Formats: sequence, structure tokens, C-alpha cells
Amino acid sequence: MSRPFDPQRFAVVDLIRRKRDGGSWSADEARWIIEAYTAGFVADEQMSALAMAVFFRGMSAEELDPWTRAMIDSGVRLDYSGLGRPTVDKHSTGGVGDKITLILTPLVAACGVAVPQLSGRGLGHTGGTLDKLESILGWRGDLSADEVRRQLVEVGGAIVAAGPELAPADRKLYALRDVTGTVESIPLIASSIMSKKIAEGTGALVLDVKVGSGAFMKDTVDARELARTMVRIGTGAGVRTVALLSDMSTPLGWTAGNALEVAEAVEVLAGGGPADVVDLTLALAREMLATVGIDADPAEALASGRAMDRWRRIIRAQGGDPEAPLPTALETEVVTAPADGIVERLDAMAVGLAAWHLGAGRVRKEDDVQAAAGVELHAKPGDVVRAGQPLLTLHTDTPERFAAARGALEGGIGIAPPGTTVVTTPLILGRVA
Amino acid sequence: MSRPFDPQRFAVVDLIRRKRDGGSWSADEARWIIEAYTAGFVADEQMSALAMAVFFRGMSAEELDPWTRAMIDSGVRLDYSGLGRPTVDKHSTGGVGDKITLILTPLVAACGVAVPQLSGRGLGHTGGTLDKLESILGWRGDLSADEVRRQLVEVGGAIVAAGPELAPADRKLYALRDVTGTVESIPLIASSIMSKKIAEGTGALVLDVKVGSGAFMKDTVDARELARTMVRIGTGAGVRTVALLSDMSTPLGWTAGNALEVAEAVEVLAGGGPADVVDLTLALAREMLATVGIDADPAEALASGRAMDRWRRIIRAQGGDPEAPLPTALETEVVTAPADGIVERLDAMAVGLAAWHLGAGRVRKEDDVQAAAGVELHAKPGDVVRAGQPLLTLHTDTPERFAAARGALEGGIGIAPPGTTVVTTPLILGRVA
Repeated sequence: MSRPFDPQRFAVVDLIRRKRDGGSWSADEARWIIEAYTAGFVADEQMSALAMAVFFRGMSAEELDPWTRAMIDSGVRLDYSGLGRPTVDKHSTGGVGDKITLILTPLVAACGVAVPQLSGRGLGHTGGTLDKLESILGWRGDLSADEVRRQLVEVGGAIVAAGPELAPADRKLYALRDVTGTVESIPLIASSIMSKKIAEGTGALVLDVKVGSGAFMKDTVDARELARTMVRIGTGAGVRTVALLSDMSTPLGWTAGNALEVAEAVEVLAGGGPADVVDLTLALAREMLATVGIDADPAEALASGRAMDRWRRIIRAQGGDPEAPLPTALETEVVTAPADGIVERLDAMAVGLAAWHLGAGRVRKEDDVQAAAGVELHAKPGDVVRAGQPLLTLHTDTPERFAAARGALEGGIGIAPPGTTVVTTPLILGRVA
Repeated sequence: MSRPFDPQRFAVVDLIRRKRDGGSWSADEARWIIEAYTAGFVADEQMSALAMAVFFRGMSAEELDPWTRAMIDSGVRLDYSGLGRPTVDKHSTGGVGDKITLILTPLVAACGVAVPQLSGRGLGHTGGTLDKLESILGWRGDLSADEVRRQLVEVGGAIVAAGPELAPADRKLYALRDVTGTVESIPLIASSIMSKKIAEGTGALVLDVKVGSGAFMKDTVDARELARTMVRIGTGAGVRTVALLSDMSTPLGWTAGNALEVAEAVEVLAGGGPADVVDLTLALAREMLATVGIDADPAEALASGRAMDRWRRIIRAQGGDPEAPLPTALETEVVTAPADGIVERLDAMAVGLAAWHLGAGRVRKEDDVQAAAGVELHAKPGDVVRAGQPLLTLHTDTPERFAAARGALEGGIGIAPPGTTVVTTPLILGRVA
């Protein structure tokens, strides 16, 4: 913190009541709340009541910008200037089967941009990007800041764990929100994401805001509001920020899991893979290159094998063996189509929960994930299927979990009668810049 | 608690989110929240977020009744049956100059009812009823349950501190609400008051719900809602409950302080005193007698001196000397009318704050109050005054506080030009039964 902090400067109960009653905070007050909470002068029970008041009343730009800045200032702000090339990062608000980071980092690095991709483990239906990459023999994500910098110079990309020195105020606040039912607030989500992304020192940022049953944001109105808020915060902090809104009503690609998703990412890097994953990767890559003014064609980088080459170099730089076989599950079970018809619905949330029951995700922070667990899809909405045809394959090392996974899928699969016209949601639903 | 409590029965984060999103709790869930919070399985930060969600979403009768019952069941429920006469208690939601309990307890006791008046100290503009009575030499309010019972048999009334064994869940929750900006919620206020009043074992209860600037409830809509909620809870728990709504836009009587209010109460018991105090006392006394079916005339009990006689017996039974002179302030200062005219406004909140600044109330729970500090009124709304005529006398032992008290009164006194018709608010604004 750059100036002395005065714990007596404001009375937190008055600030809580003012927000509760629809009033607003000054920039100094908003900033003070975060400083006082981080320093322990505002108690957890006060901050959770305040967060709930924010859930109901929202926060204006005049409140949220200094609030977010205080979260950034609670820790260090990294600086990747002087690398000799621009830096750009991507953040997804999270969805089922979202392995885009694995492909995008080497792809954009292959186009001449440095990608310092700070990632998490998370408590989602599958592990986070770090968990997925840990399916690769020897790979590690806990690099020091110096190691990240050296790797960005040498291979142009790094996928690493965000250290505790980045936005510690957010770490403390997020842990509180998680246990007090105050996660689902657009300004609080926006400031949480953006404080970490700005602190990590990227020069530009592309956001993938997911919309649908498998995402935080269930409708495009909320998603657009979240995207607008994040773009405003980023731009205000000097980080060129663009957001795409993308569909998360059905899983992305053919897999949801850890090793299963790594295998799919490698397929895409090899020039194959599912169309939706390829399309979204290229759309995000184009946005990333545009934000830093680099005129390169990511489709060409993919087709030429340069992206795959970069992938191998990044994995090796972080101790991994890109040629080692990925772990496979001890047991699999197939879910078949109950009738002839057209797949109308393959719900992202249901598939995500099934993957989680199979062992791909965590119950508690300290749990391990199963590398090989997850769900493989054989059909997508709009596909014609016959009764008895495989729809999904469930993978797990712990077969006693199959029943729970099947339970989670109940109601999540819809087959329309043959001949029905099924309208599928477009993959990209909007853009905010 | 009568049945085993299961801390794993519900997930509190789900219950918080459901309330936040406008859903409702089952009776079992509402009850479990209080039990789990009292037992420490729901953390303070979860309970404060939940209380804030209740502030915004309210609670239905189906939620609030088991919630309140769980608060009662968290401690002991006293039982005053078998005294040979009915018990009835009165509770005021609190206002400036409210000394009614001091008069009402001996008055109703003189009519043949047992009045187990459990009172508090509070953090109001003046002290609570116990602080006021402590102005009397030797008086003490910390009687044991056995002493209260004996005193009810012998003299028919007792004014005592509520012990920690009554509704401990409310004690814990109120302390949390106080520091988290979640006090001002009608269901939470209602359950807090009623859990203590029901636990104290009274057979009937009359509520004085104050409305106006000097009260919790600023308008009659909220006050009526609070009254209805409390009457429903009381009746549901087998306690005959009636509420009057009374005006608190201007102080009650001619005094706001501790010893000053005792002196005024004694004046009323002697057959004199301000008309508003007499009128409200008699109205509440008639309600109290009606709830237990006793046909007695409280005006007669006051006029005959029987109420005064009972006052002396109650004070003596609790160690006090009713003949001892009351403490007087070291310093006084007079506030005069700034112009000729008619008093249009003498704001209860402004007078209350002035009394507080003079030392009549507390800043923190552990502070002492000044027995002699407070404000004496010489005019009330509707009275004709001349420029320079005394309006108020400020009393304190610490004259450096006069300036702050005068500051608090600024804007709180309104004098209309001579000849203006000033409409004053009626004292009793409604009744809920």
C-alpha cells in the first residue's frame, strides 16, 4: 500500500447500512473497505453482511474501480514489459469441457506474443487448467516469477499457478464469499477476476464469458453485464480488454475431465478435434492478436504444426513429457440413446455433475482429482441418433461412482422424435469491447 | 433442546442462497439455523450474510415462528403459574423520555396482577429502565429467579435484569446484528423481542410499539407490521398479546434522562405529571388488565395513592430508598426560544441525541451512564412561546458536553410564526390484537 492506512477513518457498520439502504460509497470509502478487511480491522462477519448487501444493491463504477484497485494493491503487480514482445492473456469464466487455454497458449505464442497464463485448480466439475496439465508425466505449474519470465523469453508461453502474492485481498474475500452465499454478484465476480488478471502484469486481456446451464451466468443479459463490467475495469487499469460471450448450454468439445481434455487439446493442435473447440480457439486467438496489433493468422499456425511445436516446447520447459501416454481410467461405462430421434439437449450442468461424481473434480480444496475420470461425448445437440447407440462414455477409477454419475445425467439428456427440427445455440453469442 | 441436534442435517450455504434468491425455508430448516448457530456450527460470517438476506427478503410466519421458538428453546422458559394471580408484562420498543415502565409496574400490581418486568440497560440515548432505577439510592435489579418469584408473591411486581439463561440464542444473534448492519429487520426485531418476553414466563403481554423520529420504526406502516408480527408470535406461543402504536415524534413527558425520568414517574404516581405520560400509562394499564380479565380502574388506583404505595414497596423490596433525594446535575444550561411563535416541532431524535451527548446514554456496552444527565422540556409542540423564553434545560456533570448537545438540537426545534395552526400527532396511533 502506497499511503498510510487509517483503521479509524470510517465506521464499517455505517458503510454496510448505507449500501443496504441503497446509498453509495465514495472512492475513498470503497478503497478503505478492502484495505481494512485485508488488514483485519473489518471482521469476516461484517464483510459477509456487506457482500450480501452488494449482492442486492450492486456497485457503481465509482465504487467498484477503487475497490478493485485496492485488491490489486493488496499484493504485488507483476511487470512483463521489456520482454521484447507484447503480452496478452485470456481468462474464461469457466464451463464444462473448457480446454481452450491448453490450445490457445501455444497457438498465440507461436504467433509471436508472450502469454503469461496464470491458472487455478478450482472447485469446479473437473479440475482447473493446472489439474488437467498435471495428467502429463512430470509437468509442474509452480514456477517462480523469474522462471516464468525466462520461459516467456525462451518459448513465449507459460501456464502457471497464480502465487499468493497476487491480490491476496481477493483470496481472502473469495474464501469468505464461498461459505456465505455471496459468490453470485456481478461486481464481486468482476473485481475478483480482474484484480488477479491485472496484478499478473499482462498488457492485454481477452475474456471468454460463458453463458448457459454449465456456466456461472445463466443468461446473456447477466453475462453481458459481467463482460461490460470487466472490460471497463481492465481498460481503466491500462489493460486492453475485450470479451466474447460463448455458449455453455452443452459441453465444449467431446470431453469433460482432466486427461480426457488434454488428449482432445492435443488433437486440435494436431489439426483435428471438434469443430466447436477449434472455432472458439481461433476466435479468441484472433481477439488476442488484435489487442496487441499483431497481424498473424492463427488458423495457419494451427495447420502448419507451429502451434503443436510450441505446445511441446512449453510442456518440456515445465518438466513434462509431451510424448508420454496419458493415464486412462480403470473402468468405463456407456450411456446409450433411449430412443430413435434427434439430440435436443445434452445439458452442460448435468454432464459436469456426472464428471464430478466420477472423480474429475473436488469436493474440498484439499482433495485430489482423478486424472483419468470424466465424460466422453459421442453425440451433440442436433445429431440424429438410433435407440441403443452410445451417447456418452463414463470414465472412472472408482466404479462405485457410476450410479451417482448416471443419476446426475437424469433429465439432462433430451431426444426429440425423428424429423423434429432442433435449433442449436450459436457458439459465440456476443462481443464486448 | 428437547431432541438431538444434527449439525449435518442441512447445508447452511444452500439455506442462505435460497433465502437470498427469494425462496423459503421449511419449519425444520428455520429451527435448525438457530440451533446450529447457537451451537457454533453456523459461523458468525454465515449468520450475518443470512441476516442481511432476511433484511431484503423477509421471513414468512411459517419460517419465523419455528425460528423464534428455537430461540426460546435455546435457554430456560420461566414459569410464573401458581402465583395465585395472573401475570402480565409490558414491552416498549423504545423511545425518548419513555419512563412508562416505572409507573405501570406498580400501578398494574396495585390492581391485583403480578408484573415480572424484565428490563435492560441498552445502548439508547438514555440508559434503560435498570439504569434509570439505579439513580435511586441502594436499588438493585439483579435478583435471582427465586427472589423475583418471592417478590411477585409479596409485593406483586419486580423490575429486574433479564438473566443470561433467557434466550441465549437471541443474545448471540443480537450482538452479531449490532456490528453487521442487520438490526433493522422487522422479523429479526420481532423474534428478538418476543423470544425474551415469552421465555420470561409472562402469561400475557402488552406491547408499546413506538413510531416516529425517536423510534426504531419511522412510519406507521412499518410499526403496524412489526406489531402484527409480534402479536402473532406471542399468540402462537400461548401468550395473550396486544400492541398499541404510540407517537414518538416528540419526547414523552417533560424529561429525557435517568434520575430526571424517575422524578417525573414519581410525580405521576403522586397524581400529577404530564398528560401524555398519564394518558399512555392508563391506556397500557387498561390493556394489561383486559388481557388477564381483571376489572379494575387504573385511574382510580393512581388517584387513590395505591399505585404510589406499591411503588415504594417495590423499590424497598429491591434495596432502594424511595424517600432518598435523587441525584442532580452539577451544571445546567437553558436553551431559549429564538422567536415568538408556536412550537411546531421538538424532534424526539434531536432531544435523544442531546441527552446522549450530555452523558445520559452509553457509547459502549461497558460505559457508565450519568444518573443526573439529560434534557428537561419546558414546551411541547402546539405551545405558544415568546422569544427568549426557556424551551429546554440541559443537565450534565460534564459541562464540556453542552456544545455537542446544542449541536444535536440544531434543526430539531421548529417555531412557527404566531397565529399558525399547528397540528400535533395524536399520542395513540393504533391498536393491534
